[in-house]
Amino acid sequence: MMHIFDIQTDGPGLYEITGDVRRWLNRQGDGVVVLMVRHTSASLLIQENADSDVQRDLRAFFDRLVPPSDNPSMKYLRHTAEGPDDMPAHIKAAMMPVSLTIPVAAGRPALGTWQGIYLFEHRTRPHAREVAAQFLSA
Amino acid sequence: MMHIFDIQTDGPGLYEITGDVRRWLNRQGDGVVVLMVRHTSASLLIQENADSDVQRDLRAFFDRLVPPSDNPSMKYLRHTAEGPDDMPAHIKAAMMPVSLTIPVAAGRPALGTWQGIYLFEHRTRPHAREVAAQFLSA
Amino acid sequence: MMHIFDIQTDGPGLYEITGDVRRWLNRQGDGVVVLMVRHTSASLLIQENADSDVQRDLRAFFDRLVPPSDNPSMKYLRHTAEGPDDMPAHIKAAMMPVSLTIPVAAGRPALGTWQGIYLFEHRTRPHAREVAAQFLSA
Repeated sequence: MMHIFDIQTDGPGLYEITGDVRRWLNRQGDGVVVLMVRHTSASLLIQENADSDVQRDLRAFFDRLVPPSDNPSMKYLRHTAEGPDDMPAHIKAAMMPVSLTIPVAAGRPALGTWQGIYLFEHRTRPHAREVAAQFLSA
Repeated sequence: MMHIFDIQTDGPGLYEITGDVRRWLNRQGDGVVVLMVRHTSASLLIQENADSDVQRDLRAFFDRLVPPSDNPSMKYLRHTAEGPDDMPAHIKAAMMPVSLTIPVAAGRPALGTWQGIYLFEHRTRPHAREVAAQFLSA
Repeated sequence: MMHIFDIQTDGPGLYEITGDVRRWLNRQGDGVVVLMVRHTSASLLIQENADSDVQRDLRAFFDRLVPPSDNPSMKYLRHTAEGPDDMPAHIKAAMMPVSLTIPVAAGRPALGTWQGIYLFEHRTRPHAREVAAQFLSA
């Protein structure tokens, strides 16, 4: 059955959901878990879970690659009515995944040692985010 | 059974296929739908479906990030025989997804209110594109 | 049952695994194959398999977009202790997929004529990489 993970965000950055996914998968067997964020201004990443500087640097890189729409370099953008962070959020959500599919063995996601699952919030204001999840048996 | 969606494109930009996917899923139950574009110069996006300026701005951003190969800044590229839009199309197809996996509940894709499914054509000339689709029951 | 593909890399670039995936799928029927790289400094791409200049150009583009962290333009990065190629590798692994889902018909991945499956190694030193695979029947 489909499950919805509810994630409350409070500004741009990575929010780890690995523990939530692990707990939900706990009684499943072999298969895959599918995750999809139900929004167009946030992404889902599998990323390194050891040094929090990695998460900080990811945000710093993408903020430079896709500056706010009130930055002079971005003045060609037209979708600006919802704020200077809105169109860059859509661009980041095109560039980084919104759906992930992860193999599962004996109820455990087959992540590597250093991999965690993250919601990457791209908007400035707090948002209530939904991640739809489905488990499929192999 | 695998299905092929045929999409005729007529220049770069986003082509919505949400309706086609919804109709095809109509008699399925719970599970996931897998979509994969069978080409290396187009992408599949889940993106905002309300303001068409978002689609225009996405194209504008990626055309600036990955200019045509006859642009002076791109003169280091070697794969140029198929036209100045060809290698940039491969780069965009590396940067934006070519496969999507979407949870399905009661025959309906679990998309958020503002999410649509799009083929993003990266080539200039018209192309006949194929998107392979598979439904898996949960 | 989940399978692990072992890929030994020897520097940055694309390593084709299409043949390995085809052989492993050989006795399966209709469904999908899920692939996920179990590392945060490598990606999985479906890309063009005809002209090797495409693979060379992909690497050249992303090396310019995400320079080493000892490059003056990247001095804002903090996660630098593991070498100048490490944080750029994480950024590339955020920007290009780490999981792929591919429809399968009669035991054959439904790839287009020009599509191959590649591990994209982002690190400089040789690495032993694992790609987890799961087949799901439709």
